Amino acid sequence: MISKSKISYIKSLANKKLRLKYGCFVAEGNKIAIEILNSNWAIEQVYATQKFVDEHQFEFNKNKIEIITNEEIERISNLQAPTDVIIVMKIPSANKIIINNHGWSIALDGIQDPGNYGTIIRTADWFGIQQIFTSPDCADLFNSKTIQATMGSFLRMKVDVVDLEKLITENKFDQIAVAVMNGENIVKTTFTKNGLLVLGSEGKGVSQKIIDKATHLVTIAGKGKAESLNVAVAAGIICSRLPI
Amino acid sequence: MISKSKISYIKSLANKKLRLKYGCFVAEGNKIAIEILNSNWAIEQVYATQKFVDEHQFEFNKNKIEIITNEEIERISNLQAPTDVIIVMKIPSANKIIINNHGWSIALDGIQDPGNYGTIIRTADWFGIQQIFTSPDCADLFNSKTIQATMGSFLRMKVDVVDLEKLITENKFDQIAVAVMNGENIVKTTFTKNGLLVLGSEGKGVSQKIIDKATHLVTIAGKGKAESLNVAVAAGIICSRLPI
Repeated sequence: MISKSKISYIKSLANKKLRLKYGCFVAEGNKIAIEILNSNWAIEQVYATQKFVDEHQFEFNKNKIEIITNEEIERISNLQAPTDVIIVMKIPSANKIIINNHGWSIALDGIQDPGNYGTIIRTADWFGIQQIFTSPDCADLFNSKTIQATMGSFLRMKVDVVDLEKLITENKFDQIAVAVMNGENIVKTTFTKNGLLVLGSEGKGVSQKIIDKATHLVTIAGKGKAESLNVAVAAGIICSRLPI
Repeated sequence: MISKSKISYIKSLANKKLRLKYGCFVAEGNKIAIEILNSNWAIEQVYATQKFVDEHQFEFNKNKIEIITNEEIERISNLQAPTDVIIVMKIPSANKIIINNHGWSIALDGIQDPGNYGTIIRTADWFGIQQIFTSPDCADLFNSKTIQATMGSFLRMKVDVVDLEKLITENKFDQIAVAVMNGENIVKTTFTKNGLLVLGSEGKGVSQKIIDKATHLVTIAGKGKAESLNVAVAAGIICSRLPI
């Protein structure tokens, strides 16, 4: 049986400050777990049902797996429909930021919804984008909801929290395309082979300082009456037009 | 002060059976509320803070507004970050299903996540699509999370729960485009002016019976390593290619 102190430790990782203090975060869900267990990311502890361990094959030291019941998982899960496995992972140490000048990268300005943030990582990974920059006021990558929404793509994405203005000033991007409400229709935009796509929050959009540095202000044309698109949907539509 | 019986009534509307019994559902959030209050949808009761009422203008009988505190809203809210207003709305009576043969419609097969469902309604509304069909096992339109994710677009969308196979058999669509993992690249597909776009759940995809009736099996090409795209993102990307 899982101890009370372990339960309160795992639950404490829902708090960003405590994640930084302990250097750990939580990933949940069977599909994500399989990807994690077959990756080389550092794992502190796996909590799984006997069923999960029996039914899945993965390369992982089984001594680090604690078998727990579904009822116990429900007690520590952040999900509304808890699955069979919860993994406590170690936050990787920040590497020196290396700008990948090949292909496109995405910059997120003030995107605070972890579900949208994680879905953008998943979408970027689908299209083969390898690097995402976020402003310091974006949701935290290691929030379990962000991790959940990535569906495992966080394992492959290089994510750096940066001052976006400085990033743009100090690095050369062939194009800086900023998504705005009244820009050029993306269908008419000619995108080069590499650049930076900047997306802002649905409420506030991209900050003016960044807009001022754009080479292209782009918009997804719509004939309907919705006021805006979900930012992860917008990211997907623009990515699908990039020559990557 | 809001009565205990009202609180338990509002909370009970999180349950689909009780929504059907009472014929009501809950919509939350300031932006959605403004759209609702300026629409002609039937409202049972508005619960709002004094601040909300003072700061916003809308055409609505103010006698139907009960002023409550932020603490009270927190008690009845389904949102993690409750806003200033919660509206109990009446579920509209089902109309005879009329197939709109002009333009494109969307059919959803087994999409159970209310957030994805609502985001698809919002996305469809952005592109000017006016009709969505869902299989009976999809999430409920009147789940507060679906409503929330539509950002008000449910007010403009014709949504019908139908037997999708029957829908396709009994009606003529110029094209029936089904999103699959290994179909034709949508970039190469020539879409006609009207048709039906069918999307399935991320886990199970579209059911074989529907795939068998497709005129086009379409896929969003990706060079990365993610196993799939979020279904609302996929809906957005395909909609952005339709001639609407």
